[in-house]
Amino acid sequence: MSKNKTIMLYGRHACFAALDNPIRKIQRIFVTERTKNELPKNHKHPTPKVINIREFDKMLPKDSVHQGIAVEMSALPPCGLKEIIQNDVIVALDQVTDPHNVGAIMRSCAAFGAEVILFAKDNAPDESAVLAKTASGALEVVRMCKVTNLVRSLEQLKKDGYWVVGLDGHTDMDIDKANLSGKTVLVMGAEGKGLRKLTKSACDLLVRLPISGKIESLNVSNAAAIALYEVAKGK
Amino acid sequence: MSKNKTIMLYGRHACFAALDNPIRKIQRIFVTERTKNELPKNHKHPTPKVINIREFDKMLPKDSVHQGIAVEMSALPPCGLKEIIQNDVIVALDQVTDPHNVGAIMRSCAAFGAEVILFAKDNAPDESAVLAKTASGALEVVRMCKVTNLVRSLEQLKKDGYWVVGLDGHTDMDIDKANLSGKTVLVMGAEGKGLRKLTKSACDLLVRLPISGKIESLNVSNAAAIALYEVAKGK
Repeated sequence: MSKNKTIMLYGRHACFAALDNPIRKIQRIFVTERTKNELPKNHKHPTPKVINIREFDKMLPKDSVHQGIAVEMSALPPCGLKEIIQNDVIVALDQVTDPHNVGAIMRSCAAFGAEVILFAKDNAPDESAVLAKTASGALEVVRMCKVTNLVRSLEQLKKDGYWVVGLDGHTDMDIDKANLSGKTVLVMGAEGKGLRKLTKSACDLLVRLPISGKIESLNVSNAAAIALYEVAKGK
Repeated sequence: MSKNKTIMLYGRHACFAALDNPIRKIQRIFVTERTKNELPKNHKHPTPKVINIREFDKMLPKDSVHQGIAVEMSALPPCGLKEIIQNDVIVALDQVTDPHNVGAIMRSCAAFGAEVILFAKDNAPDESAVLAKTASGALEVVRMCKVTNLVRSLEQLKKDGYWVVGLDGHTDMDIDKANLSGKTVLVMGAEGKGLRKLTKSACDLLVRLPISGKIESLNVSNAAAIALYEVAKGK
């Protein structure tokens, strides 16, 4: 992602959080008459342009739930591994790329104090309006860090003092029985496929969620929410 | 929902689970050549009709992720309050109707041993293909029970020995500090709005998820997953 890329986000939580993020360069703000009154009075951004719902529908992709606000802004700057090692909890996603799932995971990260999501460059979602909308503001507080090689980055993080914990349905260790204090990387794979072999080998420990046999697996963002909740408990 | 209603579900988990459900009357099965071989060899259902992807696309709503299988069948029979009181854990949803959210909650219910979701009739999703697809098979093991008045039903369940616990962001009691053993009804409201006043008054106890101030709330299905996980721990 180039530093100069421009994106258009929509939706109240996503846009209000972006307007509050000093890293963003805000270029244009579109609002309805009603939403206009909800913007902070003394903001330093360009004057909002009031447009009607029909103009919103024309400007944005079909069925965008814009809630009367859209903002054009600079994309977030890229984030390298070195910038993230001061964080206590990191989530690493192995081939989880659906923007709805990643957005929801980002929201749970913000809720439970994980400040970074790590992806392999080739298997990462773009910073998009759908992702931002699902993240409900969390895109501005949780950093997406895209690395060339996920396994190599996990090895590096181990050297930096992280405990690398993979979520895997085929282990016997329930997540609440593991001692997850200290700096933790929580590694999760895609639904169905799970963690890839090499990713699994890079983990210090594998843990499972204690689900019944009535269902094969949880939705990945639901599994992430529970795991992040448990990790936060140990801090 | 009438007993005679027919619905068309699609997607592998949703359809395979429905074919396994003895309550369903299976009317027609559509598969691709590839999916055909994955059906149980000795099933007693009508002979599957093999169609190609283009025919699937024509038959189903746009962008349906059918994975090469669609099944036409009878809708599930309605479920009354009296039928559910042998269950240990019930989820009651107060104005949560989005089929993606309800489907994901249903999946978490199946994972953590909750066998019923209670709705007010006027604020309940239909049994739909989208709901079934998101529930990933859980629609066949978790019952949707639609009642005339949610608050009155909660009062009745209290008389039947249930402990009615509402999830609410404005209470001080963290969910893991509450003693949630015994028969439990977990009550959840819509994102943003939360529980309505009367619903809240019907609860024996309000609990919160310990989320940070960086984000207003979790996605409702993520919050449900964590709450169900905690309730299951107490059993």
